[in-house]
Amino acid sequence: MKAVVFLADGFEECEALITVDILRRAGVETVMASVMDRRQVESSRNIKVIADAMASDVDFDSADLIVLPGGRLGTENMAKSSIVAEKCREFAQAGGKYLAAICAAPSLPASMGLLEGKKATCHPDFEGHMAGAALTGTGVAVDGNIITGQGLGATFDFAFQLVSMLVSEECAEQIKKAICYKK
Amino acid sequence: MKAVVFLADGFEECEALITVDILRRAGVETVMASVMDRRQVESSRNIKVIADAMASDVDFDSADLIVLPGGRLGTENMAKSSIVAEKCREFAQAGGKYLAAICAAPSLPASMGLLEGKKATCHPDFEGHMAGAALTGTGVAVDGNIITGQGLGATFDFAFQLVSMLVSEECAEQIKKAICYKK
Repeated sequence: MKAVVFLADGFEECEALITVDILRRAGVETVMASVMDRRQVESSRNIKVIADAMASDVDFDSADLIVLPGGRLGTENMAKSSIVAEKCREFAQAGGKYLAAICAAPSLPASMGLLEGKKATCHPDFEGHMAGAALTGTGVAVDGNIITGQGLGATFDFAFQLVSMLVSEECAEQIKKAICYKK
Repeated sequence: MKAVVFLADGFEECEALITVDILRRAGVETVMASVMDRRQVESSRNIKVIADAMASDVDFDSADLIVLPGGRLGTENMAKSSIVAEKCREFAQAGGKYLAAICAAPSLPASMGLLEGKKATCHPDFEGHMAGAALTGTGVAVDGNIITGQGLGATFDFAFQLVSMLVSEECAEQIKKAICYKK
């Protein structure tokens, strides 16, 4: 299994990095792909992270999942990327592919009409930007191949949901135990 | 308030970065200090992060808190740093300063005798390396000015404990709400 996590300046670092950590523990090949014009990106709390690749160099055909981390500015920067828009449409609509977004980021596929009539969640501040989605108000929401998360505090549950769907529930449970996650 | 978070190759990236994120949200000046011979460090899950400073350049006199993130290799690398050892001893013993460690990292101050007779927690794999500590087996443990955490899955609670002690419980509660953290 292969996942691509988009990184843009202003991203919520731990919405991205908890997800990357948990996916890698589950054995999912996980590529952090910059949508800026350089591999070094800076998070919403000024943490500098070096992406694994430029989004334009990533082979998305072999990917099963794309992940959009939140952060208001990070989401605005992702919205400027034609690759992100193209891949959101493709992954939302292709069979056997998954689209995941958390916090501010679900507003991006929503703005493209991709969450129309779908169960979804997002940060309360962005509930007014979820055009047509059936908001659940929960930490994580799943509708078919679209997985959404509410915010930083729900990121572990969001990541475990992805592992459950891409690998197995058993694998997710094993990782929860290994990292002393209790909820 | 000022905190210094030590970074070394092999650190559990989100044990460090969740803590940095939450401390910064709380208005605590937070410096990520590399104990390697360069500012770019690589985490246990191969995430490259650029530290704010070299540990040798940090003004610890103005710091209120030092944080030791876990990761087996990260802890081994911190153990090679004379600055980390010196500051562990100083912060554990000085009035009005705080020492915090999570996952594998509490074994480091323990190996120096600093947790002797103190309530503490750590990752289950490191409970045999906690010389003289009164192990609580809980997600977070506090004994005076020493705060310990069990593992990656307890990092939010660990970080909120630090905010409660350095800033206020009210501030910690506000951040929990802002990031949709429910527990």
